Amino acid sequence: MTAQPIVELLHPSGLHDHDPVFTLHEHGKMEIASTVKLADRDDLAAAYTPGVARICLAIADDPELLSDYTWVGGCVAVITDGSSVLGLGDIGPAAAMPVMEGKAILLKEFGGVNAVPLCLDTTDVDEFVDTVVNLGPSFGGINLEDIAAPRCFEIERRLQERLGIPVFHDDQHGTAIVALAALVNALEVTRRQVLDTTVVISGAGAAGVAIAKILYEAGVGDIRVVDRQGVIHRDRGELPPHKLEVAQLTNRNHVTGDLAAALKGADAFIGVSGGTVSERALAGMADDAIIFGLANPDPEVHPDVARRYATVVATGRSDFPNQINNVLAFPGMFRGALAVRAERITEGMKIAAANALANLVADRLAPDFIIPSALDRRGAPTVAAAVATCARRDGVARA
Amino acid sequence: MTAQPIVELLHPSGLHDHDPVFTLHEHGKMEIASTVKLADRDDLAAAYTPGVARICLAIADDPELLSDYTWVGGCVAVITDGSSVLGLGDIGPAAAMPVMEGKAILLKEFGGVNAVPLCLDTTDVDEFVDTVVNLGPSFGGINLEDIAAPRCFEIERRLQERLGIPVFHDDQHGTAIVALAALVNALEVTRRQVLDTTVVISGAGAAGVAIAKILYEAGVGDIRVVDRQGVIHRDRGELPPHKLEVAQLTNRNHVTGDLAAALKGADAFIGVSGGTVSERALAGMADDAIIFGLANPDPEVHPDVARRYATVVATGRSDFPNQINNVLAFPGMFRGALAVRAERITEGMKIAAANALANLVADRLAPDFIIPSALDRRGAPTVAAAVATCARRDGVARA
Repeated sequence: MTAQPIVELLHPSGLHDHDPVFTLHEHGKMEIASTVKLADRDDLAAAYTPGVARICLAIADDPELLSDYTWVGGCVAVITDGSSVLGLGDIGPAAAMPVMEGKAILLKEFGGVNAVPLCLDTTDVDEFVDTVVNLGPSFGGINLEDIAAPRCFEIERRLQERLGIPVFHDDQHGTAIVALAALVNALEVTRRQVLDTTVVISGAGAAGVAIAKILYEAGVGDIRVVDRQGVIHRDRGELPPHKLEVAQLTNRNHVTGDLAAALKGADAFIGVSGGTVSERALAGMADDAIIFGLANPDPEVHPDVARRYATVVATGRSDFPNQINNVLAFPGMFRGALAVRAERITEGMKIAAANALANLVADRLAPDFIIPSALDRRGAPTVAAAVATCARRDGVARA
Repeated sequence: MTAQPIVELLHPSGLHDHDPVFTLHEHGKMEIASTVKLADRDDLAAAYTPGVARICLAIADDPELLSDYTWVGGCVAVITDGSSVLGLGDIGPAAAMPVMEGKAILLKEFGGVNAVPLCLDTTDVDEFVDTVVNLGPSFGGINLEDIAAPRCFEIERRLQERLGIPVFHDDQHGTAIVALAALVNALEVTRRQVLDTTVVISGAGAAGVAIAKILYEAGVGDIRVVDRQGVIHRDRGELPPHKLEVAQLTNRNHVTGDLAAALKGADAFIGVSGGTVSERALAGMADDAIIFGLANPDPEVHPDVARRYATVVATGRSDFPNQINNVLAFPGMFRGALAVRAERITEGMKIAAANALANLVADRLAPDFIIPSALDRRGAPTVAAAVATCARRDGVARA
């Protein structure tokens, strides 16, 4: 029903004409669609003035109706400042837009959640937080994306304190949920108990910190987080707040030293550092080890090499078995949270999501099949159902 | 291709179940749609990682490519603070959302422009401006909506100073453009020359001020703007900035007094006050007068009454002839401005839009037909073409 565009939007310069990925991205990857008919005067009178005034007054009278009679209850903002985009680093808000659009269409495609990509022209934490708080009435949830550590932690915390809707930093929690799901099944495959397991995490950025926290909540026996200075422990001196928190939850055997020291006898390695891990260090791991090299596109250790030291190997890549891909988590997470109008996302909801994902392939488990395919359409609805149930149980569901 | 929502969003409470306007508004009036296929691994690799990284790097290298390879160049934010919604007044940002959604789908339906409704939880001018400036990289244009005067004037001015994309307050300029289009044809019908015409505007809010300015730019002979204190003139004492500006452009015969005094001998009356005008006052107008009572839903004078004193009568209502409806202007205005990547919207572009609209019915002019129907699909593309041409002429087109 859309009008024929008589005045065409400009075509790209032509520089990239022969590149199919650029052609695919011409004018972006998404659009707005009306869900109501606008063909005649009656349609206009119902969807717009004068009819719409009655909807406005009803919401003014009872703000809860905002979710009933607008798209807000089913709509998420995907927000970045462009400071830590993919593996590209700080490329700024404009250049981050293609990733935010991608995230938005994945939310729709897999979770049936509407999502609006927003790239903010500020890297000041106060300004970022104020801007998003001011946008609050427009969205049912906030997906933070590609924001550099450590300010991502503070931004998420302050937004969740000020907004009564779920705030979810996908680089942290999406990664953590899918990593936990894969780990749960890897432990099953290697006949381990969660409580007896030692996991080493390489990297103490957004993903590393969130994985450490979710593993702690899930009851993993010991966790060792390694950053550029070595294993994090309470006595290491000046730790920024997010690493101090990690130190308090992890490393109960007070291991010190480098990555190799941390890996000695460890059951599992999870790399989210973008660095590398030596074969010598991997050789020190326990028998039947588990190695997740999640840096993209270059894992911390090539899967063919990792296989020499481990029974279960996972990466972030789609061209190897066991891809740890956030898309398994965030669409269902928001779908479930929005469905029950959750005020926030609890640790329990994240763990419920991970367990639901793990369970999806429990009857077919094998070293090369510990996690559903990123394209498995059952992922999002399964996660959504688990998350919604848990939100009610945790008392954060408003409906 | 969207996943089946296994976990349904909540249905409304049921209070309004038997009201078709409420049923129509369930979960809002719009959704996001992907414009690319996401069926298999190759699709994902092109639209998301790793393919998308190359688009990001290209934009980081040349920010102009943002318009080529994202939806930003064809996407407008429809932004309010909910402080002056329809005729309902200050109902707040949440309750304003149904109107913003309506605006957004009209932009798409008539102009082929994607639009995102944003309701800001602040009425502080600085905060509003900072918030929208921070959102700058996400949009190709800003449509301000339903913001109370006088702060709407300052917000628009400051945003346009700080953003290199078109900022357009529809309650001002949309109304002004369509009113000018109708007036041009009404003058033709009553065989008047623009330069010899005296127009009285009742109301010095957003619409009244904008109409006064566009009539001045269009060369209308004399304009008298009347607010609650009477006719605005330079010596009336403490005038706020927007009324001072009006005083400088209007009332060249230094008329003082009330609306009746202003209307004495006037050729046209344009009511945008929400108030009323007495028959006694209308009786003082020139022969073959023109009366536009644009307050909605209750015109300043009922059209049946107005007809006793005027040859041409227009209202804002769809159930009377000559409906002055902004939808004739804003979709084409944005379409045209975005098509040439205009930096801003000039007075010339607004007048070009009005003339294009007027011209659309020039061959069928009659007292009851001075403006195209609000549903006339030719409106937006005609306006877009005129606006794009004028933007290039005015040197504000970036392409």
